[in-house]
Amino acid sequence: MFLTRSEYDRGVNTFSPEGRLFQVEYAIEAIKLGSTAIGIQTAEGVVLAVEKRVTSPLIEANSIEKIMEVDTHIGCAMSGLIADSRTMIDRARLEAQNHWFTYNERMSVESVTQAVSNLALAFGDDDADPGAMSRPFGVALLFAGVDEKGPQLFHMDPSGTFIQYDAKAIGSGSEGAQQALQDVYHKSMTLKEACKQALTILKQVMEEKLNETNVEMAVVTPEKMFQMFSKDELQDVIKEL
Amino acid sequence: MFLTRSEYDRGVNTFSPEGRLFQVEYAIEAIKLGSTAIGIQTAEGVVLAVEKRVTSPLIEANSIEKIMEVDTHIGCAMSGLIADSRTMIDRARLEAQNHWFTYNERMSVESVTQAVSNLALAFGDDDADPGAMSRPFGVALLFAGVDEKGPQLFHMDPSGTFIQYDAKAIGSGSEGAQQALQDVYHKSMTLKEACKQALTILKQVMEEKLNETNVEMAVVTPEKMFQMFSKDELQDVIKEL
Amino acid sequence: MFLTRSEYDRGVNTFSPEGRLFQVEYAIEAIKLGSTAIGIQTAEGVVLAVEKRVTSPLIEANSIEKIMEVDTHIGCAMSGLIADSRTMIDRARLEAQNHWFTYNERMSVESVTQAVSNLALAFGDDDADPGAMSRPFGVALLFAGVDEKGPQLFHMDPSGTFIQYDAKAIGSGSEGAQQALQDVYHKSMTLKEACKQALTILKQVMEEKLNETNVEMAVVTPEKMFQMFSKDELQDVIKEL
Amino acid sequence: MFLTRSEYDRGVNTFSPEGRLFQVEYAIEAIKLGSTAIGIQTAEGVVLAVEKRVTSPLIEANSIEKIMEVDTHIGCAMSGLIADSRTMIDRARLEAQNHWFTYNERMSVESVTQAVSNLALAFGDDDADPGAMSRPFGVALLFAGVDEKGPQLFHMDPSGTFIQYDAKAIGSGSEGAQQALQDVYHKSMTLKEACKQALTILKQVMEEKLNETNVEMAVVTPEKMFQMFSKDELQDVIKEL
Amino acid sequence: MFLTRSEYDRGVNTFSPEGRLFQVEYAIEAIKLGSTAIGIQTAEGVVLAVEKRVTSPLIEANSIEKIMEVDTHIGCAMSGLIADSRTMIDRARLEAQNHWFTYNERMSVESVTQAVSNLALAFGDDDADPGAMSRPFGVALLFAGVDEKGPQLFHMDPSGTFIQYDAKAIGSGSEGAQQALQDVYHKSMTLKEACKQALTILKQVMEEKLNETNVEMAVVTPEKMFQMFSKDELQDVIKEL
Amino acid sequence: MFLTRSEYDRGVNTFSPEGRLFQVEYAIEAIKLGSTAIGIQTAEGVVLAVEKRVTSPLIEANSIEKIMEVDTHIGCAMSGLIADSRTMIDRARLEAQNHWFTYNERMSVESVTQAVSNLALAFGDDDADPGAMSRPFGVALLFAGVDEKGPQLFHMDPSGTFIQYDAKAIGSGSEGAQQALQDVYHKSMTLKEACKQALTILKQVMEEKLNETNVEMAVVTPEKMFQMFSKDELQDVIKEL
Amino acid sequence: MFLTRSEYDRGVNTFSPEGRLFQVEYAIEAIKLGSTAIGIQTAEGVVLAVEKRVTSPLIEANSIEKIMEVDTHIGCAMSGLIADSRTMIDRARLEAQNHWFTYNERMSVESVTQAVSNLALAFGDDDADPGAMSRPFGVALLFAGVDEKGPQLFHMDPSGTFIQYDAKAIGSGSEGAQQALQDVYHKSMTLKEACKQALTILKQVMEEKLNETNVEMAVVTPEKMFQMFSKDELQDVIKEL
Repeated sequence: MFLTRSEYDRGVNTFSPEGRLFQVEYAIEAIKLGSTAIGIQTAEGVVLAVEKRVTSPLIEANSIEKIMEVDTHIGCAMSGLIADSRTMIDRARLEAQNHWFTYNERMSVESVTQAVSNLALAFGDDDADPGAMSRPFGVALLFAGVDEKGPQLFHMDPSGTFIQYDAKAIGSGSEGAQQALQDVYHKSMTLKEACKQALTILKQVMEEKLNETNVEMAVVTPEKMFQMFSKDELQDVIKEL
Repeated sequence: MFLTRSEYDRGVNTFSPEGRLFQVEYAIEAIKLGSTAIGIQTAEGVVLAVEKRVTSPLIEANSIEKIMEVDTHIGCAMSGLIADSRTMIDRARLEAQNHWFTYNERMSVESVTQAVSNLALAFGDDDADPGAMSRPFGVALLFAGVDEKGPQLFHMDPSGTFIQYDAKAIGSGSEGAQQALQDVYHKSMTLKEACKQALTILKQVMEEKLNETNVEMAVVTPEKMFQMFSKDELQDVIKEL
Repeated sequence: MFLTRSEYDRGVNTFSPEGRLFQVEYAIEAIKLGSTAIGIQTAEGVVLAVEKRVTSPLIEANSIEKIMEVDTHIGCAMSGLIADSRTMIDRARLEAQNHWFTYNERMSVESVTQAVSNLALAFGDDDADPGAMSRPFGVALLFAGVDEKGPQLFHMDPSGTFIQYDAKAIGSGSEGAQQALQDVYHKSMTLKEACKQALTILKQVMEEKLNETNVEMAVVTPEKMFQMFSKDELQDVIKEL
Repeated sequence: MFLTRSEYDRGVNTFSPEGRLFQVEYAIEAIKLGSTAIGIQTAEGVVLAVEKRVTSPLIEANSIEKIMEVDTHIGCAMSGLIADSRTMIDRARLEAQNHWFTYNERMSVESVTQAVSNLALAFGDDDADPGAMSRPFGVALLFAGVDEKGPQLFHMDPSGTFIQYDAKAIGSGSEGAQQALQDVYHKSMTLKEACKQALTILKQVMEEKLNETNVEMAVVTPEKMFQMFSKDELQDVIKEL
Repeated sequence: MFLTRSEYDRGVNTFSPEGRLFQVEYAIEAIKLGSTAIGIQTAEGVVLAVEKRVTSPLIEANSIEKIMEVDTHIGCAMSGLIADSRTMIDRARLEAQNHWFTYNERMSVESVTQAVSNLALAFGDDDADPGAMSRPFGVALLFAGVDEKGPQLFHMDPSGTFIQYDAKAIGSGSEGAQQALQDVYHKSMTLKEACKQALTILKQVMEEKLNETNVEMAVVTPEKMFQMFSKDELQDVIKEL
Repeated sequence: MFLTRSEYDRGVNTFSPEGRLFQVEYAIEAIKLGSTAIGIQTAEGVVLAVEKRVTSPLIEANSIEKIMEVDTHIGCAMSGLIADSRTMIDRARLEAQNHWFTYNERMSVESVTQAVSNLALAFGDDDADPGAMSRPFGVALLFAGVDEKGPQLFHMDPSGTFIQYDAKAIGSGSEGAQQALQDVYHKSMTLKEACKQALTILKQVMEEKLNETNVEMAVVTPEKMFQMFSKDELQDVIKEL
Repeated sequence: MFLTRSEYDRGVNTFSPEGRLFQVEYAIEAIKLGSTAIGIQTAEGVVLAVEKRVTSPLIEANSIEKIMEVDTHIGCAMSGLIADSRTMIDRARLEAQNHWFTYNERMSVESVTQAVSNLALAFGDDDADPGAMSRPFGVALLFAGVDEKGPQLFHMDPSGTFIQYDAKAIGSGSEGAQQALQDVYHKSMTLKEACKQALTILKQVMEEKLNETNVEMAVVTPEKMFQMFSKDELQDVIKEL
């Protein structure tokens, strides 16, 4: 009685007979083509670690940014269509800045995530949000930050759904990485331990041999806020693995 | 003489030869994929109880909210596409707030439900409502509240139809849960009894074992208005089951 | 030489080779799925009686309204998509109110019906009427009222066509009910007799056993204007059947 | 080399390889489903006579209007989609009224017809006329009036083409009626004779037996302008047939 | 490798692989269904003669206008969709009038033709010209006029192309008529001779017998400007044939 | 794996899997149906020569203009859809005039060409340029002019690409003509020689016998700027061939 | 279960089931049809070298520009649809100029590249950027410049992704050229050496014999900023190869 699945999957915003929105599901597939990213939340702070795909030795690896600062107290790691992530990070920065100017206090990590989620939800509907795209965003984001509730890690996918995690992996190696995170995570983990675990797991799921140029790492702590690891700092951690 | 059913079901707002609007019916299917939610109205107040699907032990279950406060005297439980529900709850809050500022009195539960229904109806027609989506909302809502008419429970589905119920279940386990509600409900039920029954029925239809982290419960009473159950309070009720 | 019927029936506003507009005809089909409603016009006033489909014992039957007051002197019964009827009743109320404020007199029943008809006609054309939908309305209406011309009953269907009737039935049981009305109607019928006949005919066409909770009845008379029957009043009439 | 006819007939404004606009031709078909109307122009005035289809004995035949007054000196009979005719009559009335206020003289019958024709032509093009529909109008009109050029009868079809006729029939019985008009018409016909001939011909083409409730008749004369026949007046003419 | 012709011919403004615009070509076909019109330019003035299709003896032939005055010094004959020609004549009149008010001199025949051509070109593009239609115009025009360059005749087709001719025929009989014009035309023709030749050729290509009611004729001369032939004047010329 | 070519060629602005834009390529085909035009740039000036297709002896050949003046120092020859060229020439004239008024100096030939190219590029995108069409222009242009850089010849095709040429042929005979130009062109050619060569080559590729009425020729020189050849001047050159 | 690839590739902004955007991938194909361009970044400056396809000896090779100046300190080489590149270079120039006027400092090479990337991303969405096209840009760009960070080379493709490279080749010969660059590039290369290598590699991948008219070369150095090579300078380098 029904058409086959494929007949419903090209309308951006059309339900299939089972009540599914296929374009959103396909956007989620786009992320499975992306590089792996990992976030771990500890009592001392949150760590973000991301694989960089340096497909040619002539590429300046520094110009590939997969972790970006949203505000002094929030960082964001991404996987999927890079171009799409830029629109979302810009929105996050704008909202965080507006909040600061309006209320003279830092925007909470959850509020920033929700603001970006609103933008993600509005796809195909410019009236709802002038910045909305005509299709779902093809990117997943890990928001890491510290606010009054302490260190926090939020995951958002192309459907706009966001959930707080203790530890979360996204991208092409996410399946294995998430299982590994589940095995090693414990509530009393130190931030240092988290950094080591993040790189250890990345190492397992990356096709290339992990080194200081093909990964990025950052931490957000209550004391020093958002901080990217330098190449030297990265090398120190890698040596210890 | 007619085409088969499937030829009419992708136009958002096209009648089939039998006078049906299939996209609305498919949106109702979306809810059957959602987590189960239950509402029971008693003379003392209304209770809302919802299953939370915590698919990974690393998820912070607190960040999944399936019951939200609309105003001090109204709460809302949802099942279906979370992202869609957010738009509708925002509208409900706005309308309730506007009513309060304009008339200096609380908006009735029915009026709030109707305001959200108007938004749901306007899909595919931005002129009717600038907040309207290009497809039917894929979410069902249970509005629980107290006003001059006393405690009340309203159910709204993606077609925008809303009806007052003594007790109502939505989501993937709704069929069994609704039958169970019909068996146990009686007009003289106490609120405490209702809370116990709500969790008992949820327990029956949930695949996971029910505990204080994978359910949410809230009551709305004339005395204390909208109140979420804390984990301890939930545990107390669960122990008694 | 021509395509089969079905090729022309999805364009909202496209003529078939025989000059037919199929989407309007399909909207009329939507009404055949609706609950039955009956209106009878007598010299003393007009009666409206409607079946309510109470699909669950936990439904608060009062919250299902199939007869609504448009103005003190006009009521309206509906069958079909409830959500669509709301838009039309709102328009009717607005027009009636505007007329009252502008001319300080009650708007005639025919004028109210025509105003709603204009809205129904404008489907697919927002320029003609900002409140217009993108498809024909899936609802039929019975307007009952009293004005300078005395008691009157008007029927309007999704094509926007409206005609005055002595007695008219709409909805799933309309075929049998209309035949029954034709048999019993006479110009000298009293309003009381009309009320009894309306319920008698509803009883015949309803699948459920008729009682005071699954029907609604209202009368509009020159003396008392629009009046809904209370449950007690309904029971009194039902007993007499 | 060409597609079959049917491939070109759903685009509202697309030429077929032979240079035809099929949607306009299909709209003309809509009129062949309508009730029959007849107009006859004499030196003394113009007569309009229309069949009313009273499909149920409970219909108030008066509420079916197929002849309407445009201005004191112009009437209009219609066949086809009633709802469409209303838009066109409203335009005709507006233009006639504007002319009166602006120039303090009555608008000529031809100018009124042309104003309505402009509206009919603009289908599918809101820029040309904000009142334009998205499809051709499914109605034919007979404009009867008196002005400085004396009594005149104009026919307009959905293509917007209008032509002056001595006598013209439209609607489902138009073929036979037009032949009959051709046989009986002569330039020196009196208005009274024209009224009798109009009803005689209607009687021949109507399926129902013609009586005073299922026809409407009106005349426009230089002396008394637009005048509808009352039931009594109609009966008098019918008796004489 | 290419699709068959028919696949490219419904897009209003789509090139076929050979670089053709089929909708324009089909519009040109529409003219081949129209009545025949002839224009002849002489040193003394220009003549326009047009066949009128009086399909019923009850039609007032005067109400069919195929030759219209654009300005005192310019006339226009048309063939094809009458309704479309009206839009173009209105534009021509407006432009001629504006020119007169702005520059206090008569607009040249070529400039008027170009103004109408601009409108014809803009089809499918409201931004270019708010009066543009969504499809090519289905009409051909013969502009006849006198200005500083003397008597002139311009032909314009649905593609917007316009060319000056000594003599030109359009419409269903144009093929035979153009050949005949080529045979009889000479530069020293008198206007009187041109009038006779125009009717002689029309007579040959018309299906009906030519008489004073089924043709229209007009001349534009430097002395008397645009002048329609009265029925008597027409009869005089016809007698001489 | 790919669709056949034809599936991608109707979307105005859709890439085929090989990265081609077929509608632009088809527009270039439109020019191969056009009349042949030739431009030759010499140190003394630039010559433009164009074939005129006089399809009927009754056509006033003067009214067919294939070479037009853009500004006193720039001329333009065209091949393809005449109507499209008019829009582009109008833009060129406007830009040249604006430049003159704004900077009090003549616009360079390249700048004029670029301005027209911008318009050509904007097809299908009214926001980029309000004068843009919904499809690529079906016309090729040869801009000939003199400015500070001396005499110059630019060619522009429907893709908006423009390139400076010593000598260039466009239109149906362009293939043979371009080869001939390549054979005879040398940098020290005099303008007179260029004029003779242009006509000689046109003569070879034209189907009709070349004479003073079916070709147009113009030169642009630093001394006399843009000058059209009169019929007499043309005859003089033709005699010498 | 899925459709074949080709069913998803015509929607400009539709995900395939694997999460791919085919129109962007096809635009990248367009570049493989373009001429080859090479950029090499050294400590002394950046060199850009591009093949020019001079398809006719009558073309003025100078009028084909494949390397353009964006600002005094930034140049850009392109491959693909020339017309598309112009829009992007205009945007780059505008942004660089605005930055200069606003901040009185030169815009960084990365910021200029990002500004153009934003424009590229916005395809199909005029709201995001009024200059956006309805399809992805069919062009790849190499931005070469010097700023506070020293000499830099950025590559941008139609997806809007931009990455910094030590050396990068684009266009039809890019595959072989990129491999050659990888073989010869070393961090201590002098600019002079880079110029020679760029031409050597171009020579290998070009079909035509490389000479001073069919290549363009430019360098950007901290001392002399953007400088195009003259024909003589080019000849000098070519001789040395």
